[in-house]
Amino acid sequence: MKRHAVRLADGRELIYFDERDDAVREGPDRRELPPPPPASELRHDPLTDEWVAIAAHRQTRTFLPPTDQCPLCPSRPDRSSEIPAYDYDVVVFENRFPSLSDRVGDGTAGYPGGTPFTPTRPGLGRCEVVCFTAEHGTSFAALAPARVRTVVDALADRTAELSALDAVEQVFCFENRGVEIGVTLHHPHGQIYAYPFVPPRTRSMLAAARRHAAATGGRSLYADVLAAERAAGVRVVAANDQWTAYVPAAARWPFEVHLAPHRRVPDIAALDDAERDAFGPLYLDVLRRFDRLFDSRQGTPYIAAWHQAPVRHERELGYLHLQVFTIRRAADKLKYLAGSESAMGVFINDVRPEQAAALLRDA
Amino acid sequence: MKRHAVRLADGRELIYFDERDDAVREGPDRRELPPPPPASELRHDPLTDEWVAIAAHRQTRTFLPPTDQCPLCPSRPDRSSEIPAYDYDVVVFENRFPSLSDRVGDGTAGYPGGTPFTPTRPGLGRCEVVCFTAEHGTSFAALAPARVRTVVDALADRTAELSALDAVEQVFCFENRGVEIGVTLHHPHGQIYAYPFVPPRTRSMLAAARRHAAATGGRSLYADVLAAERAAGVRVVAANDQWTAYVPAAARWPFEVHLAPHRRVPDIAALDDAERDAFGPLYLDVLRRFDRLFDSRQGTPYIAAWHQAPVRHERELGYLHLQVFTIRRAADKLKYLAGSESAMGVFINDVRPEQAAALLRDA
Repeated sequence: MKRHAVRLADGRELIYFDERDDAVREGPDRRELPPPPPASELRHDPLTDEWVAIAAHRQTRTFLPPTDQCPLCPSRPDRSSEIPAYDYDVVVFENRFPSLSDRVGDGTAGYPGGTPFTPTRPGLGRCEVVCFTAEHGTSFAALAPARVRTVVDALADRTAELSALDAVEQVFCFENRGVEIGVTLHHPHGQIYAYPFVPPRTRSMLAAARRHAAATGGRSLYADVLAAERAAGVRVVAANDQWTAYVPAAARWPFEVHLAPHRRVPDIAALDDAERDAFGPLYLDVLRRFDRLFDSRQGTPYIAAWHQAPVRHERELGYLHLQVFTIRRAADKLKYLAGSESAMGVFINDVRPEQAAALLRDA
Repeated sequence: MKRHAVRLADGRELIYFDERDDAVREGPDRRELPPPPPASELRHDPLTDEWVAIAAHRQTRTFLPPTDQCPLCPSRPDRSSEIPAYDYDVVVFENRFPSLSDRVGDGTAGYPGGTPFTPTRPGLGRCEVVCFTAEHGTSFAALAPARVRTVVDALADRTAELSALDAVEQVFCFENRGVEIGVTLHHPHGQIYAYPFVPPRTRSMLAAARRHAAATGGRSLYADVLAAERAAGVRVVAANDQWTAYVPAAARWPFEVHLAPHRRVPDIAALDDAERDAFGPLYLDVLRRFDRLFDSRQGTPYIAAWHQAPVRHERELGYLHLQVFTIRRAADKLKYLAGSESAMGVFINDVRPEQAAALLRDA
């Protein structure tokens, strides 16, 4: 794999990850761009002890542009996109409308009517876009396994590099797919959020893992749960030598699958060659099963979320896994996060996990 | 107010709350109904230490029926709905497709491939429907203040009665409004979930309140935050002698308002006469501002969530407040819970709380 980093016209970083070592990606960014916006503002919610990012500049971000104006397609002689080159394999660049960045502006010194109970600080970190392919009209599920390997290598590179930034406490790689979950660009792409704090779900998982380790003389909670699911078998969707894909027994979403490596590693950067090679075929199999679940030409909307160990604290409690779930609960119905989920955090799942696993196995 | 409880054909409870003491609601339920489904199954997610409700029978629940088949309209001589009477003011009844109930069935003794890490128990509790008016085509925002008072009295009654059930740890009253958040019936109605555990958000709020009390010699966190917001003023939307409506400094949603009584009470049942009377005019004002924010004939979709003290534990740390928020961030755009929110619990808000408050004040 060939890695080649450049700067866009407004100073943002862009990195090509190419499968051929002789790929040449020399085209300069010919656009005139305004400077990118400063970091958003983080405010601490005293009632829940959680940070919220206030990113007002994102309100005007690019929203479902026509295909011939896609900012994630390669540039052409007559049109410059976000990617200067006329072709690419995988490319990663800083989001033009980031929720988190390392550019600190004026807006982060405080806010009107700030109170002692709601401190603020700059939303330091990074938000990056990961384009999986130059081909606009395809999807992750249609990629070749070799391309998935390139994506994994790119995510490993970004995880290692973003983890080294002073402000960053957690690197989160994910893909939102489908207009049903608010995707604003159709071109197949994922995102990376490098947060300057440990996110609420990671905190919950660390607390549970810490209690389990204390109660069992140091055992890994995730490793024990994974072993139990592999032994039970009824919720396993697919597996190979290196990875298992299963529906968690207490799944929150109608169709939710965890893909976990059999060896405990803290993050994507720690995956070895064999694990990286074995991931693609299994994940593609799972995604294609998602698409076959419902008779829908558009493909099944999903969120794919890599849960990595936090960068600095209690890394030994983390266990890398990918959580992929759809909000579709039937061909014509979506699962909405209404009162119970959005306001109380209590999930009601209308599909039994064993049935979800059986439907995915049969798909 | 006249309170009159009856039983529906399948044994579910229904209670009329009428504004006239001479109201007669004697019509029997003439339908033949199958027995209601048993309680759902609660499964414990070991990775986050949270309970998830698996309610497979809800998958086939009534979904956006035509107006003339609305189950929440009063019955007519030629058609029986869920409400036997030919008219009503406010009526509360057990949900026909409940996530939680006191009917324990076979499905709660375990599940295929259960593991030691994911214990199960029955989803004991209650799910009730609260119809705000017999008029199908209206909305909460269009109710008269006297009707809001009747609704508050009904919620107070239900909070007290459901709190007395053995299994119940938290009573949650809420309204989902709008198809954009998954409402399956258009008739103006709210819901009550009586949970057999303390929900995740309540646990977070109790933990923060506990730390604050310990650090300040027993002060109430919510009372201190409310006083600071009233003093700052910039995020206050409206207020009267008894209640203040403000946008929290660390709001998660584009337009989010808390309505809090100036006196600390644990729950709706503890509100006095003056507080109950003063709530309606302020809340109606806020809801009408929500509807005027966007040029939309359908009205603004929202979730309104009453946060009450838990029933048994640490009631002294609770402070009743109503959280109302919309997922609409612009006339043509919704706020989606995508990767950061759904998988990590980190909210990105595109609207500054001070701007949201100003827009609501000006609406």
